[in-house]
Amino acid sequence: MIIVMDPNASMEDINKVSSCLELNGLRVNLSKGDSHMIVGVIGDASKLDSNKLLRFDGVQKIVKVEEPFKKANRLFKPDDTIVDVNGMKIGGGNLGIMAGPCSVESEEQIIEIAKDVKASGANFLRGGAFKPRTSPYSFQGLELDGLKLLKKAKEVTGLPIVTELMSTDYIDEFVENVDVIQIGARNMQNFDLLKQLGKTDKPVLLKRGLSSTIEEWLMSAEYIMAGGNENVILCERGIRTFETYTRNTLDLSAIPVVKKLSHLPVIVDPSHAAGYWYLVEPLAKAAIMAGADGLMIEVHNDPKNALSDGQQSIKPENFHDLMKKIKKIAEFEGKTI
Amino acid sequence: MIIVMDPNASMEDINKVSSCLELNGLRVNLSKGDSHMIVGVIGDASKLDSNKLLRFDGVQKIVKVEEPFKKANRLFKPDDTIVDVNGMKIGGGNLGIMAGPCSVESEEQIIEIAKDVKASGANFLRGGAFKPRTSPYSFQGLELDGLKLLKKAKEVTGLPIVTELMSTDYIDEFVENVDVIQIGARNMQNFDLLKQLGKTDKPVLLKRGLSSTIEEWLMSAEYIMAGGNENVILCERGIRTFETYTRNTLDLSAIPVVKKLSHLPVIVDPSHAAGYWYLVEPLAKAAIMAGADGLMIEVHNDPKNALSDGQQSIKPENFHDLMKKIKKIAEFEGKTI
Amino acid sequence: MIIVMDPNASMEDINKVSSCLELNGLRVNLSKGDSHMIVGVIGDASKLDSNKLLRFDGVQKIVKVEEPFKKANRLFKPDDTIVDVNGMKIGGGNLGIMAGPCSVESEEQIIEIAKDVKASGANFLRGGAFKPRTSPYSFQGLELDGLKLLKKAKEVTGLPIVTELMSTDYIDEFVENVDVIQIGARNMQNFDLLKQLGKTDKPVLLKRGLSSTIEEWLMSAEYIMAGGNENVILCERGIRTFETYTRNTLDLSAIPVVKKLSHLPVIVDPSHAAGYWYLVEPLAKAAIMAGADGLMIEVHNDPKNALSDGQQSIKPENFHDLMKKIKKIAEFEGKTI
Amino acid sequence: MIIVMDPNASMEDINKVSSCLELNGLRVNLSKGDSHMIVGVIGDASKLDSNKLLRFDGVQKIVKVEEPFKKANRLFKPDDTIVDVNGMKIGGGNLGIMAGPCSVESEEQIIEIAKDVKASGANFLRGGAFKPRTSPYSFQGLELDGLKLLKKAKEVTGLPIVTELMSTDYIDEFVENVDVIQIGARNMQNFDLLKQLGKTDKPVLLKRGLSSTIEEWLMSAEYIMAGGNENVILCERGIRTFETYTRNTLDLSAIPVVKKLSHLPVIVDPSHAAGYWYLVEPLAKAAIMAGADGLMIEVHNDPKNALSDGQQSIKPENFHDLMKKIKKIAEFEGKTI
Repeated sequence: MIIVMDPNASMEDINKVSSCLELNGLRVNLSKGDSHMIVGVIGDASKLDSNKLLRFDGVQKIVKVEEPFKKANRLFKPDDTIVDVNGMKIGGGNLGIMAGPCSVESEEQIIEIAKDVKASGANFLRGGAFKPRTSPYSFQGLELDGLKLLKKAKEVTGLPIVTELMSTDYIDEFVENVDVIQIGARNMQNFDLLKQLGKTDKPVLLKRGLSSTIEEWLMSAEYIMAGGNENVILCERGIRTFETYTRNTLDLSAIPVVKKLSHLPVIVDPSHAAGYWYLVEPLAKAAIMAGADGLMIEVHNDPKNALSDGQQSIKPENFHDLMKKIKKIAEFEGKTI
Repeated sequence: MIIVMDPNASMEDINKVSSCLELNGLRVNLSKGDSHMIVGVIGDASKLDSNKLLRFDGVQKIVKVEEPFKKANRLFKPDDTIVDVNGMKIGGGNLGIMAGPCSVESEEQIIEIAKDVKASGANFLRGGAFKPRTSPYSFQGLELDGLKLLKKAKEVTGLPIVTELMSTDYIDEFVENVDVIQIGARNMQNFDLLKQLGKTDKPVLLKRGLSSTIEEWLMSAEYIMAGGNENVILCERGIRTFETYTRNTLDLSAIPVVKKLSHLPVIVDPSHAAGYWYLVEPLAKAAIMAGADGLMIEVHNDPKNALSDGQQSIKPENFHDLMKKIKKIAEFEGKTI
Repeated sequence: MIIVMDPNASMEDINKVSSCLELNGLRVNLSKGDSHMIVGVIGDASKLDSNKLLRFDGVQKIVKVEEPFKKANRLFKPDDTIVDVNGMKIGGGNLGIMAGPCSVESEEQIIEIAKDVKASGANFLRGGAFKPRTSPYSFQGLELDGLKLLKKAKEVTGLPIVTELMSTDYIDEFVENVDVIQIGARNMQNFDLLKQLGKTDKPVLLKRGLSSTIEEWLMSAEYIMAGGNENVILCERGIRTFETYTRNTLDLSAIPVVKKLSHLPVIVDPSHAAGYWYLVEPLAKAAIMAGADGLMIEVHNDPKNALSDGQQSIKPENFHDLMKKIKKIAEFEGKTI
Repeated sequence: MIIVMDPNASMEDINKVSSCLELNGLRVNLSKGDSHMIVGVIGDASKLDSNKLLRFDGVQKIVKVEEPFKKANRLFKPDDTIVDVNGMKIGGGNLGIMAGPCSVESEEQIIEIAKDVKASGANFLRGGAFKPRTSPYSFQGLELDGLKLLKKAKEVTGLPIVTELMSTDYIDEFVENVDVIQIGARNMQNFDLLKQLGKTDKPVLLKRGLSSTIEEWLMSAEYIMAGGNENVILCERGIRTFETYTRNTLDLSAIPVVKKLSHLPVIVDPSHAAGYWYLVEPLAKAAIMAGADGLMIEVHNDPKNALSDGQQSIKPENFHDLMKKIKKIAEFEGKTI
């Protein structure tokens, strides 16, 4: 951490800042610029609340030098993390392809789709049982009944299941029944939920918040990891921008950036990002080319009657075609599905 | 709801859309534009998931005509809602002034500040016991001990207390001990928490999410109200923009907009919005001028040693001066503190 | 400027960076943190392109310590700049109230409105002759004929005129005929236009760009001032956010921020910011309370038939009422109109 | 266009709106919803300023049904536009690869890079002679001397040249000497410049503005095309978001969206978008996979000493490797370079 003092800060101001730092077990290195004194901080400042220093007289700016995430940081663990889900691997060259409907709607629906996506090459089944909806009047998912149907589809196909958890009330249920617990964009900073997941050893798929920076996203991963659970898979799903022709703007540059900053695997959800089915294929292909460790794709056997998000789902036959291309691109890039 | 068909939609496409609407108990009115057929929907479409319609062949665009919020809508309740907190009123010309430290730190601290802000004219005490922090390594609040200290400060001063709830695990504790339950910006779309608050009758202070639209904010209020709890106070606290000289951008235009759309009271938190103490006074004054029903202001007796957000707190003497001006402005605007 | 080196930068990397700085006439101060070497730069680095340094091996981050604007910086000119327009002053406690139609439409229209707004207390007449429109098919303004009509309105009322210049082709015409040349949001970074205005001594009203930061805005002022023209008035007119109930989001926190960073006067345009007439009054009042040096307000005698932006104009009688309140608020704040 | 009336609009309000539309040569179709009357507008409303209608009593919302761009609209010209630059084609399956330095710096530099990028497979030479810089104190380009050096490089290599025009003052010079005139992001809405380019027949590379929507971008293309010049190539170069690890956020979803809405070719500039050299390769590959008609890539033989944007340039040897991969991806996608 570096503290830039105001041009008209006094020596007394500087001494007060230094004393505060030393009281917190840190050492100080002063250097003089043309118009500003610079206070360099030596030692682990991660527990110090830097905002506090801003209130000292004569302090102009605080510059953080170290990344605030530790366990998620590639600097301290250079090798790719490979998350193992019942023997199925994501990361380090292994692609996870999660496909399925936005919402679980019936036994017939989920089992049929599960068989279809497995046949096309998906290695995970996704499906929402609890649905975060902007309106209290919209369909909220089949909830625990949906979870049971997902388990049946897993029994039939063998595909591990990925589904969203919205409340700490159901953590035990999810840990017991689900293979990968998804945390949605709106709960990315539900710190209480993250902390409790940190105490389990269940793989967590952490979606990026709608307007989150990459640093905030990695700090949310850090909440889970700080509790002891290092099985975190990141998922880019589009960020909010001014564009209205797409639902969100998929940030594919986030993939190589996350790969540089962190050892965690990162997959891409083109369906939610774009919001329209015709965008799914070009974005899925581009995501693998940009280095993603996998995809999460909505597939529905009857998108017109889907109870949620029909317009961004593709049909099984489109998914089948897409997977043919994805397999070739994976080969091109030296990745394994 | 209006459905705009594609220029090359067939009559069959249009019939399918109409049938689906009629199956959902709605009536249909077709009209022909130059290049597009327009399908007008008659009846209450609020339970219909409009996204689903987008997936029909030939559908180009869905236009919502009704606001999606009902209970929060001024159309159906023209008079201002006045939230009554133990006899203290907010809304309808009554200003609620909530002041206190960012975090509760000690008995001495919270009681001293509570006395100070009361003497200056605040009518609520704010203070954080549970703190949402971006980093798992930052101070997370005194938690339940903080709640106890707030209660002591209330006993001493009589000021009703406002503090943030982050988890459904503590709802009972909060309903019993707190006068206004605050939901922070990061939990504005923690729908599970909102639903559970809807089942209580405790006043809720609902902060606007960091990148939320006004419609999303009102829909979150609707979640609470749909459950039966109509004691909702909205709080504008700044939105994320590209500006870096301020922490967030306070959106004062949201005040008259909310007043037009909704009957709920809306207050302003200039401290979190701006992030720097020197901005608190001009923004607090401007907020009252723009029509806010109150303010939430961070006051700290020793900002330099505050355990969180010291840089945006003002000292009791500054708060005292500010309140003198706010009282005059309130009088100018015909409002009561 | 401070250069933060990578944790694994070599001594050779550091030496290369230092040599480059010294070749540019700067001195260097090395200090060692826990994991990062810090290179402090001493001397005037404003001509050095800092991006270039990022390309050196081992460089992680560049931190700018000095503000990049010099002539607009309050640090080097602590007193408020007062711009004098034919004896009419803006800044330093003097409010400039600019009112008039979005577009000049006819002699009758502009003269009638000019008389009205003058009678209500405006001290400048605004009106668009050249209009920046998103669509090439929209009304583009009366152009030079509009300028002539503005001059007639000035002859009748004595009000100095403010109107927008969009092209360097008309600079001479504007310098001769206009009292304050307005640069619109879309041209805030039309550097060629800014440079040419820098060579005149005509007051320039510089609107903030739609998504500009305050620093970028002040740098555009700097372009004009660097050429020798220090008569710059800034105008906050709302920034683009995700909100759709307003056209733009008025950033009133920008007012106290600009006042701290710069000595230039800054006014507020609530009409363009909000986009709806019912928001003009609360935002105009709030702007003065936040410290603005004036207002720019659209007034139209027949808003329904206005050729542009009718929905955000207020009628002369509303402007008259508003000015009564603004005069009281100005008095309250110790300002002169 | 559809006009949604307020729930409490009177029949008189509706009649006034209808009359206004009919006076503008349009026909009207009224339909009644549950709580709102809907006014459908029949005929070409593109010349009508819809904002004006918002000011009528009882009007709540205007919904545009037709896209506002006509000449750029794929609806009216289904086949891909192929822009022909001295026999070199872009669009319709032909990729344009534009490579070269950010700024032209010397004869030796530009000729050496031009030879290098040609040898690697680029088919256009890019290089800045006039540079838009945020600061008036930064290097502004070699200006007309830079143009001369570009011409020399063209003579040596035969590569057509692409360079940025910032001012109408130099249009004749550019039309004579340049093969593709680039309009930078900051000038995307410099309508005066666009109009004058519309009167030439020179190919124009139109970069997307920093915070522009796709509709605004296409409307700027429309400005050029409305004047008669249909040789427009669009260039996605990243939009401003809250992310700080990248300079801008490359919006690859814009590629398939533009392809659906418009027949114009669209290329991608990953160098400016990302701002860091290590992001250029993954984003360039992803861009082609998403359907881009080409790339614009910064290449510098000595990035450390580049006078601008060195950190985002790659070296000739990296470009060579990248082009090998791009050629394979182009083949995979059935495109020709």
